[in-house]
Amino acid sequence: MSSIETIDTFDVRFPTSAMLDGSDAMNPDPDYSAAYLRLGTDAGDAGHGFVFTIGRGNDVQLAAVRAVADLLQGEEVEPLLADMGGTWRRFVHDSQLRWLGPEKGVMHMAVGAVVNALWDLKAKRAGKPLWLLLSEMSPRELVDLVDFRYLTDALTPDQALEILETAVPGREERRRRLEEEGYPAYTTTPGWLGYDDEKLVRLAREAVEEGFEQIKLKVGSDLDEDVRRLRLAREAVGPDIRIAVDANQRWDVDEAIAWTNELAQFDLAWIEEPTSPDDILGHARIAAAVAPVPVATGEHMANRVIAKQLLQSGGAQVLQIDATRVAGVNENIANLLLAARFGVRVCPHAGGVGLCEAVQHLSMFDFVAVSGTVEDRYLEYVDHLHEHFVVPTDVRNGRYWPPAAPGAGTEMLAASVEQHLFAG
Amino acid sequence: MSSIETIDTFDVRFPTSAMLDGSDAMNPDPDYSAAYLRLGTDAGDAGHGFVFTIGRGNDVQLAAVRAVADLLQGEEVEPLLADMGGTWRRFVHDSQLRWLGPEKGVMHMAVGAVVNALWDLKAKRAGKPLWLLLSEMSPRELVDLVDFRYLTDALTPDQALEILETAVPGREERRRRLEEEGYPAYTTTPGWLGYDDEKLVRLAREAVEEGFEQIKLKVGSDLDEDVRRLRLAREAVGPDIRIAVDANQRWDVDEAIAWTNELAQFDLAWIEEPTSPDDILGHARIAAAVAPVPVATGEHMANRVIAKQLLQSGGAQVLQIDATRVAGVNENIANLLLAARFGVRVCPHAGGVGLCEAVQHLSMFDFVAVSGTVEDRYLEYVDHLHEHFVVPTDVRNGRYWPPAAPGAGTEMLAASVEQHLFAG
Repeated sequence: MSSIETIDTFDVRFPTSAMLDGSDAMNPDPDYSAAYLRLGTDAGDAGHGFVFTIGRGNDVQLAAVRAVADLLQGEEVEPLLADMGGTWRRFVHDSQLRWLGPEKGVMHMAVGAVVNALWDLKAKRAGKPLWLLLSEMSPRELVDLVDFRYLTDALTPDQALEILETAVPGREERRRRLEEEGYPAYTTTPGWLGYDDEKLVRLAREAVEEGFEQIKLKVGSDLDEDVRRLRLAREAVGPDIRIAVDANQRWDVDEAIAWTNELAQFDLAWIEEPTSPDDILGHARIAAAVAPVPVATGEHMANRVIAKQLLQSGGAQVLQIDATRVAGVNENIANLLLAARFGVRVCPHAGGVGLCEAVQHLSMFDFVAVSGTVEDRYLEYVDHLHEHFVVPTDVRNGRYWPPAAPGAGTEMLAASVEQHLFAG
Repeated sequence: MSSIETIDTFDVRFPTSAMLDGSDAMNPDPDYSAAYLRLGTDAGDAGHGFVFTIGRGNDVQLAAVRAVADLLQGEEVEPLLADMGGTWRRFVHDSQLRWLGPEKGVMHMAVGAVVNALWDLKAKRAGKPLWLLLSEMSPRELVDLVDFRYLTDALTPDQALEILETAVPGREERRRRLEEEGYPAYTTTPGWLGYDDEKLVRLAREAVEEGFEQIKLKVGSDLDEDVRRLRLAREAVGPDIRIAVDANQRWDVDEAIAWTNELAQFDLAWIEEPTSPDDILGHARIAAAVAPVPVATGEHMANRVIAKQLLQSGGAQVLQIDATRVAGVNENIANLLLAARFGVRVCPHAGGVGLCEAVQHLSMFDFVAVSGTVEDRYLEYVDHLHEHFVVPTDVRNGRYWPPAAPGAGTEMLAASVEQHLFAG
């Protein structure tokens, strides 16, 4: 037996705003940051987790991570890892902490960092990358990871079990396909609002040359500008490359409908985050009014209850899970199961700090053991800050290649953490 | 001109769990707490705000309050108070802090504490209680306090203006009525799950004797127990007193419908928080299936976008705003206007630490200047911890009596803060 011996938290910030990397209609000057956690054991190993933020407030997020992680001081590790469903419930249903959400915002994301650090440790102890560890668990074990509270009107444990059991026979073959063909990616690198035309066109062409089948542009600040930039991008990439657009919650419902229908002439792969991520009814109205353009959302979806409703209402044709917005791997498994139940494709949000490294495990697990398909699915890729991770993403030819190293992808290089510690 | 000179924050906790005060199906052992803020100016006056929590995590909430309040260090006070709508937007739309919600949870509540502290200061400088200060503002000034982003598909600024202008002619008469008749209250004091039968019956009878027309019981842990306790309560108070029940988010959707329909035999005033506060579609399904029992919710409603949808969907027949869950007075004015637009009554959540003291101002303002009615409206009252406030609620004969003292009701006694500082 081993126990949690050290709980270290780090306020890590990168000065990305200086380059306008990551600039969009709602986030003009993000400084990509991580509220980073290391759980060390007396056996000498460790698990790592983090919450991605965009600068100010990273210290508040860190205080929340600390508050949750401190509950583990001195705890035996093996029981925690053996019952990750119970471990999740213990944190999320702590009645006093729950009041601070419930199940949303800073406190919920903090639970996610702690849960993900335990998954990182569990995968390292198993000597497997997280996607493979999950893909080899039995349907019953996977169902036990999920909290079905508030979900049963859309997904019961039995229905989840059936989805997972249906996927069992094809697991081996899909694992081989994943290792041979990779997982399709799309890139947002060309599309930040702060980039000038020359940079946009150049990066869009480079993306095609690098093998990406889809790119994404930020929109929503100025309609004429959006039309102009989309025309440039469409000319640069030709008719066969998909172009998605992302409004980053900029619009009200009616504005979203009118604006999207103007941009639809450029053959959009999807319209992303047209309005408030809390507006289920708004998304449903928008989706109906801009069809056949699909509506994509999810990176700011607070929890599985929001995911459930986006699917029930027809508000999302593309579900964009995020590795650090919800309460970790367990809740994202719930989201993947909900999407499979409703036949909706999952194209995760990534970028930021380490989101690509973390979320790829979930998409790969989904392909092998849940939905069983990559059809029309693309995992977001942004070429920023990967060099700070122990196992950086391997993206070539427009595809993510499955990591073989043990762990959840959430460990940063000690030197990077040290160098980018925020002085306050 | 004066400026913000001191920003002091206090982790205040009361050991309420020892008495089972506040115990319900989701919160078995709350320690009522406040993440409390004092903004002092170089003119020698101060504003006070807080977030109510139930114990663990109050330190995290305080770190968030601090992060927001620190933005005010050294700022001139008069411009902040003269444009409270702009002040609100500045905090809520800070793009980096926004990422930590957006507009929900710890960070959003922190904005509320700071905004409310500024309202407290503004009201004190005006020499008026907040309810009167607001009730004397012009419809145009009130509309300018509200951020209509994400609301315009349900409520436009022009529609809000019309609601407020319609109420102008009756303001004086209703102010007189308020001062003569008070604002109707209901009490939750008898209904905590942790109380035994004798205490339940005794407190229910006392409530009636004290003049309350409505009481509330906690339910949701055990159906047979709920039936038994409701029968005792109904026998104790007779057929003419309203009895509301509160499940505190305990149920899934189908369970909520079945359970409520079982309890309906006791003539329920409403069923409160039947399921997740994020489940708009769930509330709509429950409301349709348990009618004519009204569904009440709102104390955990993250923001005005959720309020909008609860009203659009028919998911709430009673909207229960809370003084410290959203981003302060401004956002609650949006919620009051939305409720007025949809013709839905507002019966605020209160209790905890200082929620009665704070939210009464909003109900009284609503009566005088927004909805113009108290019909079927009851403001929650729980007889806990009022002695720690500089202007404690005055509840007699089942009614809240309007405070005359200047301020927003959010100032605690310095000695109480001192005595209940959490040692950590």
